[in-house]
Amino acid sequence: MVRHAGPAEHVHVAKLRRPGFALMSVLDLNADLGEGAGDDGALLEVVTSANVACGFHAGDAVTMRRVAALAAERGVAVGAHVAYPDRAGFGRRAMTVPPAELAADVLYQVGALDGICRSEGTRVRYVKPHGALYNAAVADAQVAAAVCDGVAAFGGLLPVLGLPGSELLRAAEAIDLPGVPEGFPDRAYRPDGTLVARGEPGAVLDDPGEIARRAVALAAGEVDAAGGARVALEVRSVCVHGDGPAAVEAARAVRAALEADGVRLEPFA
Amino acid sequence: MVRHAGPAEHVHVAKLRRPGFALMSVLDLNADLGEGAGDDGALLEVVTSANVACGFHAGDAVTMRRVAALAAERGVAVGAHVAYPDRAGFGRRAMTVPPAELAADVLYQVGALDGICRSEGTRVRYVKPHGALYNAAVADAQVAAAVCDGVAAFGGLLPVLGLPGSELLRAAEAIDLPGVPEGFPDRAYRPDGTLVARGEPGAVLDDPGEIARRAVALAAGEVDAAGGARVALEVRSVCVHGDGPAAVEAARAVRAALEADGVRLEPFA
Amino acid sequence: MVRHAGPAEHVHVAKLRRPGFALMSVLDLNADLGEGAGDDGALLEVVTSANVACGFHAGDAVTMRRVAALAAERGVAVGAHVAYPDRAGFGRRAMTVPPAELAADVLYQVGALDGICRSEGTRVRYVKPHGALYNAAVADAQVAAAVCDGVAAFGGLLPVLGLPGSELLRAAEAIDLPGVPEGFPDRAYRPDGTLVARGEPGAVLDDPGEIARRAVALAAGEVDAAGGARVALEVRSVCVHGDGPAAVEAARAVRAALEADGVRLEPFA
Amino acid sequence: MVRHAGPAEHVHVAKLRRPGFALMSVLDLNADLGEGAGDDGALLEVVTSANVACGFHAGDAVTMRRVAALAAERGVAVGAHVAYPDRAGFGRRAMTVPPAELAADVLYQVGALDGICRSEGTRVRYVKPHGALYNAAVADAQVAAAVCDGVAAFGGLLPVLGLPGSELLRAAEAIDLPGVPEGFPDRAYRPDGTLVARGEPGAVLDDPGEIARRAVALAAGEVDAAGGARVALEVRSVCVHGDGPAAVEAARAVRAALEADGVRLEPFA
Repeated sequence: MVRHAGPAEHVHVAKLRRPGFALMSVLDLNADLGEGAGDDGALLEVVTSANVACGFHAGDAVTMRRVAALAAERGVAVGAHVAYPDRAGFGRRAMTVPPAELAADVLYQVGALDGICRSEGTRVRYVKPHGALYNAAVADAQVAAAVCDGVAAFGGLLPVLGLPGSELLRAAEAIDLPGVPEGFPDRAYRPDGTLVARGEPGAVLDDPGEIARRAVALAAGEVDAAGGARVALEVRSVCVHGDGPAAVEAARAVRAALEADGVRLEPFA
Repeated sequence: MVRHAGPAEHVHVAKLRRPGFALMSVLDLNADLGEGAGDDGALLEVVTSANVACGFHAGDAVTMRRVAALAAERGVAVGAHVAYPDRAGFGRRAMTVPPAELAADVLYQVGALDGICRSEGTRVRYVKPHGALYNAAVADAQVAAAVCDGVAAFGGLLPVLGLPGSELLRAAEAIDLPGVPEGFPDRAYRPDGTLVARGEPGAVLDDPGEIARRAVALAAGEVDAAGGARVALEVRSVCVHGDGPAAVEAARAVRAALEADGVRLEPFA
Repeated sequence: MVRHAGPAEHVHVAKLRRPGFALMSVLDLNADLGEGAGDDGALLEVVTSANVACGFHAGDAVTMRRVAALAAERGVAVGAHVAYPDRAGFGRRAMTVPPAELAADVLYQVGALDGICRSEGTRVRYVKPHGALYNAAVADAQVAAAVCDGVAAFGGLLPVLGLPGSELLRAAEAIDLPGVPEGFPDRAYRPDGTLVARGEPGAVLDDPGEIARRAVALAAGEVDAAGGARVALEVRSVCVHGDGPAAVEAARAVRAALEADGVRLEPFA
Repeated sequence: MVRHAGPAEHVHVAKLRRPGFALMSVLDLNADLGEGAGDDGALLEVVTSANVACGFHAGDAVTMRRVAALAAERGVAVGAHVAYPDRAGFGRRAMTVPPAELAADVLYQVGALDGICRSEGTRVRYVKPHGALYNAAVADAQVAAAVCDGVAAFGGLLPVLGLPGSELLRAAEAIDLPGVPEGFPDRAYRPDGTLVARGEPGAVLDDPGEIARRAVALAAGEVDAAGGARVALEVRSVCVHGDGPAAVEAARAVRAALEADGVRLEPFA
């Protein structure tokens, strides 16, 4: 792994790396599963963590159970991919949910998945918000706090997976939950380290080779952002997408490139 | 408590009492809560077990949490009131759900409620099917087995609450889950010990005095059935309804009458 | 009807009255029905227009049909009470729905209710957004335009009912749909003519006498706002709430007071 | 078109052909669209009628509108593919819905789709039940009558598409709605002219060549059934499936084979 210096070092990204940052020689590879959209079985051969849909934006109990069983068999860590109650919009619509309801909804989803996991010999090991809830928890401290309250209420100090520098990770750490930063090699970044919104042109990359190269850069602590900036950020996990025709291919390319770069892949939780 | 002899002793009800039946001096009083239809707070002052809606036929996470908190505070046992996924029909429509899906749906609901309960200092202590699922599990051995598989998958050998003589209780006991028989003082019975269907005339009683008298008879091991028959059956819990204008009044009348008859009320689980 | 002059005339409310404003001697009285929460039959004896839930925030087809039949029988105009797809939150949660989806959702709801109305001898006569959609359409021009696009797509130039001065009425009139302003005698107003949000203290009034007095003031073109201001506004309909214990009583009080004040009540559409 | 004589002529299929049956030189080709599962655009180049999901088992307003617009553009007739309210089970789970609710649900769906169709320059031209509702309406006269009541309530005497000999077609004709019989070249038949249930082995065929050959046989008034029987039946439309990888290919093969056999393809409504 080579640390690339670059012209964008002046971008204000101090918040995205903690003091004492060290290049990652161990990373996690996570993907969304159980959404009924991709090849869950093939992805579970590649990733180390599975964000499992809990029925609010997608998924159902029998699918959750099947994914949990496969994940348990393959040593893949299961995370609760908690979402707004919005199947019609696949959880991608912003919603204003009162904090107490949001926390309870998170707790409900984690509990539902954990019961299923235990029946298959595993447990929920972490929590990651999905879609519009993920985005809201980047910048909205109240949403972030409500999500983390729901996670904390479940008990067991489950780690929360989110964007480096996000309110989500801040809220997690404020109540002693581990906040785990992740990067998106197949998403375009803004210079402030946030993601370009899905609807915008170029927001989602689909070339497996390019995605793999960006994953290696993320492992080295940086990512190219829109407009030529280079963002320095620290990630403990890399997220690859589970849907779309080339999802499995891209995931494999990322895994191969990271391993070739000397990164060991294993669950963070 | 007096054991009433009666002309209906010839009705074939052998299955509804186990050998060694003893009159109950300890009973449980259960009601449906968290359905958004009744006065949960007032009922929780009266009952000893609360069947809490888990979001499939009614209820939502924040209501589940509020009910769980109140139940914990008052020493009321919480049960998962599992249902078909049918909010439009309040879970009262028969559905044909494949056994693996049904078992997973039960497991999902129990897990969701248990996570919520733990955050409020209690646990799910038993499971009771709701509405059309309850009815299906009376006579359909496959449905009964699927429900019990879901309960067993959650672990902890949770008791299952159901109709005396039902396939549900048989299926529970077949896999070593406690099967707990209950009676309905405000529902009309058929001579075979099953309930008169809700839609039929006279199916639901609403006079608190009559309901209370029937509860006392249930404690004594029998209930009057349609057509003048008297059914002998053994119950460990008495169910009062939580909705409707007179629900709380009827529940209080049942409690008072049972206590006056020397029955001690406490959770079975 | 007497036009009250008042100290609050300086409040900037020019937008809330159109040029040529005349005091209303004919008004409509509308309420929300078919939500499963109130006494629809009793309200339909009082109101002149019924905002019927279309299944997105509440309601179902069989209830819609029953309300439509009663409304047809009593000469009450039926309006489509269109909402975000949010049964869990009763349509009271803000959602970010792309304009094309929102317009299609509005069109879907209007069509569904109109088919039902025709089977009962009436038609959808107007459209009113519900809850969070109503609020969003007050200030958000894009939401307002999407709602009106959906209404216009249905055809028939259906009137749109909304807050005086709202983006909703502006968007309606921009595409030649009649925009009908309404007032809320049981809701507190801000000095800018918008409603105090439901969650805030004092937002919803419940004294039938006070509600009736405010309805008479609305008919005279003004309403008292929070902080002692008096807002001048022009309404063609008065909305009374359909749920809650005192709903019918308040609606009757409003009707009686308006009629005593010489206002004739009839549907605007 | 050649009329094949065969050993199975003795099978009791009298009910599946009406007196005066003539071989079909004009047929309709219908497929399920708007379910989010297939290539709607490609299928609309092949079929003459589109069964559009109305939101109860699949689909949403914006998809319905897109499909309606494409269908209008290509002269494809739009049918309402009405279903039980069961998104979780894709409408494939049997449900016991009271007749009044079922009729209202059908009416709701037809109205919703028709409003959308009119905004795109077309109309709902017929109704076809989906999945478990289709199957229930084959043999259950009460379900069949409720579906047809809902269709009749919408007005316009819309044709109802269903299995030859089904209760559905009988119920339609009993109230003067046209009952249109259809055949399934990619589904296995039982000797009584009903379909082999989806879950059973061999129920769904996937070889485009075989499917096309069976479509030609259907046009000639017969189909091979399980166990070597040959069923004589009369169809006015042929249904091809819209999902699965080979759906478009199979639909094209059916169309080409029928046209090569001298059958003209056009909507029945």
